[in-house]
Amino acid sequence: MTMTQKILAAHAGLDSVRAGQLILADLDLVLGNDITSPVAIKEFAKLGKDSVFDINKITMVMDHFAPNKDIKAAEQCKMCRDFCGEKDITHFYDVGEMGIEHALLPEKGLVTAGDVVIGADSHTCTYGALGAFSTGVGSTDMACGMAVGKAWFKVPSAIKFVLKGSLRPYVSGKDVILHIIGMIGVDGALYKSMEFTGSGLSSLSMADRLCISNMAIEAGAKNGIFEVDDITLAYIREHGGAEPKIYRADDDAEYEQVIEIDLSEITPTVAFPHLPGNARTFSDIGDIKIDQVVIGSCTNGRLEDLKAAAGIMKGRRCANNVRVIIIPATQRIYLEAMELGLLKIFIEAGAVVSTPTCGPCLGGHMGILAAGEKAVTTTNRNFVGRMGHPDSEVYLASPETAAASAVTGRITSPWEVMGI
Amino acid sequence: MTMTQKILAAHAGLDSVRAGQLILADLDLVLGNDITSPVAIKEFAKLGKDSVFDINKITMVMDHFAPNKDIKAAEQCKMCRDFCGEKDITHFYDVGEMGIEHALLPEKGLVTAGDVVIGADSHTCTYGALGAFSTGVGSTDMACGMAVGKAWFKVPSAIKFVLKGSLRPYVSGKDVILHIIGMIGVDGALYKSMEFTGSGLSSLSMADRLCISNMAIEAGAKNGIFEVDDITLAYIREHGGAEPKIYRADDDAEYEQVIEIDLSEITPTVAFPHLPGNARTFSDIGDIKIDQVVIGSCTNGRLEDLKAAAGIMKGRRCANNVRVIIIPATQRIYLEAMELGLLKIFIEAGAVVSTPTCGPCLGGHMGILAAGEKAVTTTNRNFVGRMGHPDSEVYLASPETAAASAVTGRITSPWEVMGI
Repeated sequence: MTMTQKILAAHAGLDSVRAGQLILADLDLVLGNDITSPVAIKEFAKLGKDSVFDINKITMVMDHFAPNKDIKAAEQCKMCRDFCGEKDITHFYDVGEMGIEHALLPEKGLVTAGDVVIGADSHTCTYGALGAFSTGVGSTDMACGMAVGKAWFKVPSAIKFVLKGSLRPYVSGKDVILHIIGMIGVDGALYKSMEFTGSGLSSLSMADRLCISNMAIEAGAKNGIFEVDDITLAYIREHGGAEPKIYRADDDAEYEQVIEIDLSEITPTVAFPHLPGNARTFSDIGDIKIDQVVIGSCTNGRLEDLKAAAGIMKGRRCANNVRVIIIPATQRIYLEAMELGLLKIFIEAGAVVSTPTCGPCLGGHMGILAAGEKAVTTTNRNFVGRMGHPDSEVYLASPETAAASAVTGRITSPWEVMGI
Repeated sequence: MTMTQKILAAHAGLDSVRAGQLILADLDLVLGNDITSPVAIKEFAKLGKDSVFDINKITMVMDHFAPNKDIKAAEQCKMCRDFCGEKDITHFYDVGEMGIEHALLPEKGLVTAGDVVIGADSHTCTYGALGAFSTGVGSTDMACGMAVGKAWFKVPSAIKFVLKGSLRPYVSGKDVILHIIGMIGVDGALYKSMEFTGSGLSSLSMADRLCISNMAIEAGAKNGIFEVDDITLAYIREHGGAEPKIYRADDDAEYEQVIEIDLSEITPTVAFPHLPGNARTFSDIGDIKIDQVVIGSCTNGRLEDLKAAAGIMKGRRCANNVRVIIIPATQRIYLEAMELGLLKIFIEAGAVVSTPTCGPCLGGHMGILAAGEKAVTTTNRNFVGRMGHPDSEVYLASPETAAASAVTGRITSPWEVMGI
């Protein structure tokens, strides 16, 4: 069995499972946000249950349109707040203690290796970086998950990614996953698990891994999961996570495909409109003027991401006519970035620093594009109209590339700005 | 003549003017924001002029719904950006260099004593704190102002406020103006100028004065103006403003009313829903639980305001279930507040810190209320639905009272929290 299959078998009380099998698995955590939870809450009401299956295994995070962007957002947050209050749900995160869900949950130690996590949000696959099986579900699955603590899954087959070598300077996890999606396509891992292993892992920070797992869904994957190593264990310990359960793939595990990737060959990569699979490197990127840069999101709003961006923006000014919006993913990251002097670097460069929010990533608020405008952003999707007007364009990139582009006002490799 | 009448006479090229007289006055500055400028730009186009009257005497500030809250906001900002680019307008303030207009213009030294300023925003009266005549106009007046650098005014009569004594601890300019509006009513100064003078001026900081002038419109006034003193002159010098022109009222100036106010008698004051004139002091405020606190706006988003709030929140935690949103009014204030450790105090207390924006004040974004919710806020208007749902309630207060309320979760005097 693969890593994913072993986790699922253990949570279904089975000795083994095979790809395609339908199983009912126990859930360690059920997640919702301010957009998806209200739908789940309405569905939950139809089930006629007074209480949730476990008040400590459900979490709701007000991150998409909070602080409330409009009356509808306010009403949705209120519904979540009231529900969590009534049901005594422990892990409710509101304005002031919140952050973007997929940055917040690992930071709060709510996910550990070996867990099964569902979340009513596509990018729930992020927690694979911790050696957990985690995947996005619909709001009705979330409702049933809250009620009974179980969910049905079709066991996925897998693609194994064997990473070797290490990343070059100013290249990071985002470049790796854009490179991979560019290679296999946005349906290249459809309903499969992407399993990451190999000697190259040791050179990838947890921020790199969380970013890579986060975008597994952009290749159509059911989940993306990393082999647990000392870096994973140190992260879980540091964040007070529960005792990790390590599941390694069997030597005879079956994979649909095995892909070897030499990390040292990856160069700064940008996904052009309107698909994350439209990956290009700078030999194939012309002179593209931009109007906005966003550095943040569940993909790239972590402290390491802000450090990388600040390293490039330090002592430089944002180009004229480019709005640069920095969004630390959680309150803790905001505070740490402030104490490290990163926020000062951003403000002095002419950027603004927002409260933690998903905001612009999904065209919500805090940096929406007008017709004809172009943005370089560290978010995860560049579909038509994703950040605003249907005639705007979104280019996905690493924090390093986004920072370099902020400085020049056109899509720019960090290697150019840093003279490499 | 009064202070206001003298300024208007000088700008109309007349030796004297009297209340009720219609005059055509030269303008020193014409202001618009991202909501009002697009309307003015469309009107300007109808005038058939290629250029504006003076590229250095027009300013547009993207502050209401920026960073863009939605596609409409994005299109409006784009229209302003394009217009200022085409017309070579010097003082265009976009995301990254911006701030809330009425905090930004004095900070940038764009207004000096003796100026005549019009702005397509109600709270343009703020600059009276600098000894200028400034008033809010409609977007068509802004358009004509941009074209010819002149505007028609009916010369206002005046109410003279003679301030004496000095403010008690944790009482500030906001309490003064709420006290005054409570006394004279929201139409108490209708189309009049409110002229502030007296020995008490020396105890009022520029932040206090800017706050008081800012809310003159909430008593229906045409403008609110302070006698120029050493504090005014020091502020103008520090911010690089042009040479001040000081206009003092004649000894025989006519006033409709003279009101004496002993600053030492003013206590923390709150304006209840749904009018700024519904002022109450804490002997008359019961136990009112709140859902949100906003500290910011053109009224109270200055460094002194943040210092006052941080002084109360330091070492304390925001109450559970209260969302506390801090909005430094400009990028410079944001940076200074960060360097002074104020933002750290807010974050550690459980508040969030937003990019500079008018946002929640006018129900725009960044903290909108759901039905039934209550907010204590340092903004300037508490009309029905002003901060969101028509069934929400807005209580106007000083930064000190807002901070105290954030800590307790109910409308609270700073004197209670600070043990006075």
